[in-house]
Amino acid sequence: MSAFPRGEYMGRLARVKRAMAEAGIETLVVADPASMNYLTGYDGWSFYVHQFVVVTDDREEPLWVGRAMDAPGAALTTFLNDESIVPYPETYVDSPERHPASFLAEELIRRGRGRKPVGVELDSWYYTAKTHAELVRGLPDACFADATRLVAWARIVKSPAEIAMMRGAAAIVSRAMAAGMEAVAPGVRENDAVAAIMAAQIGGTADFWGDYPAALPSVPTGAKSAAPHLTWSGDRYQADTVGYLELGGCHNRYHAALARTVYFGRPPEALRRFSGVVEEGLDTALGAARAGVTCEEVEAAWRRVIARAGYEKASRIGYSIGLNYPPDWGERTASLRQGDRTVLRPDMCFHMILGMWQDDWGFELSETFRVTEAGAPEILTDFPRTLVVKD
Amino acid sequence: MSAFPRGEYMGRLARVKRAMAEAGIETLVVADPASMNYLTGYDGWSFYVHQFVVVTDDREEPLWVGRAMDAPGAALTTFLNDESIVPYPETYVDSPERHPASFLAEELIRRGRGRKPVGVELDSWYYTAKTHAELVRGLPDACFADATRLVAWARIVKSPAEIAMMRGAAAIVSRAMAAGMEAVAPGVRENDAVAAIMAAQIGGTADFWGDYPAALPSVPTGAKSAAPHLTWSGDRYQADTVGYLELGGCHNRYHAALARTVYFGRPPEALRRFSGVVEEGLDTALGAARAGVTCEEVEAAWRRVIARAGYEKASRIGYSIGLNYPPDWGERTASLRQGDRTVLRPDMCFHMILGMWQDDWGFELSETFRVTEAGAPEILTDFPRTLVVKD
Repeated sequence: MSAFPRGEYMGRLARVKRAMAEAGIETLVVADPASMNYLTGYDGWSFYVHQFVVVTDDREEPLWVGRAMDAPGAALTTFLNDESIVPYPETYVDSPERHPASFLAEELIRRGRGRKPVGVELDSWYYTAKTHAELVRGLPDACFADATRLVAWARIVKSPAEIAMMRGAAAIVSRAMAAGMEAVAPGVRENDAVAAIMAAQIGGTADFWGDYPAALPSVPTGAKSAAPHLTWSGDRYQADTVGYLELGGCHNRYHAALARTVYFGRPPEALRRFSGVVEEGLDTALGAARAGVTCEEVEAAWRRVIARAGYEKASRIGYSIGLNYPPDWGERTASLRQGDRTVLRPDMCFHMILGMWQDDWGFELSETFRVTEAGAPEILTDFPRTLVVKD
Repeated sequence: MSAFPRGEYMGRLARVKRAMAEAGIETLVVADPASMNYLTGYDGWSFYVHQFVVVTDDREEPLWVGRAMDAPGAALTTFLNDESIVPYPETYVDSPERHPASFLAEELIRRGRGRKPVGVELDSWYYTAKTHAELVRGLPDACFADATRLVAWARIVKSPAEIAMMRGAAAIVSRAMAAGMEAVAPGVRENDAVAAIMAAQIGGTADFWGDYPAALPSVPTGAKSAAPHLTWSGDRYQADTVGYLELGGCHNRYHAALARTVYFGRPPEALRRFSGVVEEGLDTALGAARAGVTCEEVEAAWRRVIARAGYEKASRIGYSIGLNYPPDWGERTASLRQGDRTVLRPDMCFHMILGMWQDDWGFELSETFRVTEAGAPEILTDFPRTLVVKD
C-alpha cells in the first residue's frame, strides 16, 4: 500500500547510500517524518512520539523503529518486510525513565552497529536534544556526524512519479484558491472562509484526493496582513482593506503552494501599481528559472525589477518544495536568495513567493514551478496572476 | 490582541518562576509553541523556524526571540511591550553558517545571563539537538538543566478563562462529530468525509470560531482501523465494516477531543457486546475520575471492567489536554495509566480515550472531561455514547 512501487524506494536508497558513503556514515538515523516517508513510504500522524528510520550499509531495506501501536501502520504504508519493522513497547511513551532513543541504541548494538559512524539529523524538528543525548549515551563507541540535510538534498530532484504527485497537488491548490477567493468578503468571519478553503483542499479533485498540507491557510487582512504567519480568528473581513491567501495543496504528502492578494473594494491606484511591479518581477524571475542557472541569479532577476520601481525585499523569494509534513512544506535545502549558488536542475520544484510585508499591510504573489530540461519552467499552479478585486 | 488579559499571563509567570526557583533555574528558554503561547500569548504558524521565549528572574515580562519577519506577529498576539520582542535577522533562517541559537546566546550574554543556570526543554519537539549544541557552545560559562515539562506541568490546572476556552472547543468537536457521522457512508471517499469534518471544525459555532486542532481527524475503516494513526486517503468506505472517527475541536489553541465508532451495516452481535463492555468501562472510569484520586486508580477502574469480560489494553486510557500546537493536543504530563500517581485536582482536563486495536479492526470511544471540586467530572464533549450504526 506504499505510495510508490518498491523500485522507486530502491532508487532513493541507492542515492542516499552513496551520499552516506561520501560522508563516511555507515548508519543513518532519521527522525524527520519526510525523510522517513521518503525512504520507506511510512505515513502516519504518529510523529508526536519518537520514531526513526535507520539506513545501514549492510542491509538492503531500512529499519523502521517506532511505537508498538504504530507498527501495523508501518506494515500497511511502507514497502518494508516484517523483519524490518521494529516496535518499542508502550512503556517508552512519554516516560521520564525510558527514552525511545535508548531502545534504538540497544537495537543498533544488537545489530553490530555499536562502533560504526552514525549520521543524525541534528537540526531536524522531531530529533530533540534529549534524543541525541540518549543516543550518544547508548552508543559510547560510535562517532556521530551531522546529516541534517542529507536526505533532504536527495529529495530535491523529483522522479516522474513524484512530478505526477506534484501536479495533483497543484490542481488541488488551484481549486482551493478559487474556493477561497469566492468565500472571502466583507462581513465574513475569517474562520468561515478557511472552512471553505479546507473543504476544497481536502476534497481535492475527482482524480486527486486531498491530503493535509504541511502548513495551514494564511488568510490575513488589514493590519494582520503585515504579519506573515498569523493564523485566522473569528474576525470579520472589512471593506476597503487588502489581504492575501497563501494556501497549500497536498496529494500523497506532495505539495504545491499558491498565494494571491485580494482587495475588498476599489483598489487604490498605488496598490495597483505595486501589484503590477510584483507581477512583472514574478514573470521576470520565473523566466530566469532555467536549468543551469543558480538560485541567486533567479533572485537577482527579481531584485532588478523591483529596484527600478524603488522597492526592496530582504527575505528569500522561494524555496524547494515537495514531500513534507508539518510544520513546513519547504524542503529546507535550496533557497532563491543572495548567496545560494545551488544550480537549478530539471525536475527540481520551487515555490516562488513574493511576500512584501509593509508596516501595516501585506502583499503576496506566488507560483509553484518545475524546472524543465530546456527553456521556461513548467508552472504547476493555475490561477490568474493578478490582484483579485472583490468590489 | 492576546487571547487573555495581562493579569492571566502574570499569574502563569508567577507560577513558572516559582517552579524555576525550586529547580535552581534563573533563565528558562522554551521553544515549544505551546509553552511560548502560554507565557506570552504568541500565536503564529512560524514554528518551522527557530524561535524562543525566555523567562528570567530579573524581568517581569519574558522575552520573545524570533525571526524578524515574525516580530509584527509577536507585537499583535502577545501582551509584551516592544522592548521584550527581540528579532533575529533573515540571514539566520535555514543557514548552514548562522544558527538562531547562537543569536540567542549572544543576546543572553548581552543581558548578563552568561553565567546564570539555564533551563531548556530538552525533549521538546522544536528544540533540536543542534539548537542545544549551539546554545551550550554560545554560553560556555552557564550550566544547563532539563526543564522539558516545567511549563507543561504549570499548565495542567486550568483557570476559569481557560475552562471557558475548553468548553468552546468541546462545543466545536461535538458538532464536528455530528458532521462526520453524517458524512461517512459506504461509497464515500475518506477525504470527502474529512472535508466535511474540517469544515465543521473550522467553521465552529456562532459563539466559538474554530481554530485548527493540533492533530488531524483520524477516520479509518476496515483493516486500516487496526492502525491507530493512519491519516485518510481517497479510499471509499465499504459496507459491513467497522471504523471510527477521532476528532479534535479547537478554540484559541485550546482543545477538546472526541472519538466514536461506527458500523456500516447491521453490526455483528459480538461487536455490540464489545461496545457495551467499553461503554461500561468508560462510565466506570469517568465515575472514578474525582479530585484526590490518582491517575492509575482511574485506569484500574477501567481495567477491572474489561478484565471481567476477558479483554485487556496495554496502552494508557487518557492524558491531560488543553492548549497545544501540532503535532499533539496532549500535554505530555499526566497519563491515565498504571504507575502514574499524579493526583487529580479540580480544573485539570483529560481526554479519556479507549482505543482497542485488534488484529484487523479497531474501536475507539472517548470523552473530554474536567475534574470538578467534588463529585463526578464535568463531561465537556456531547455526543451519544454508543456505537453509531449507519445501515
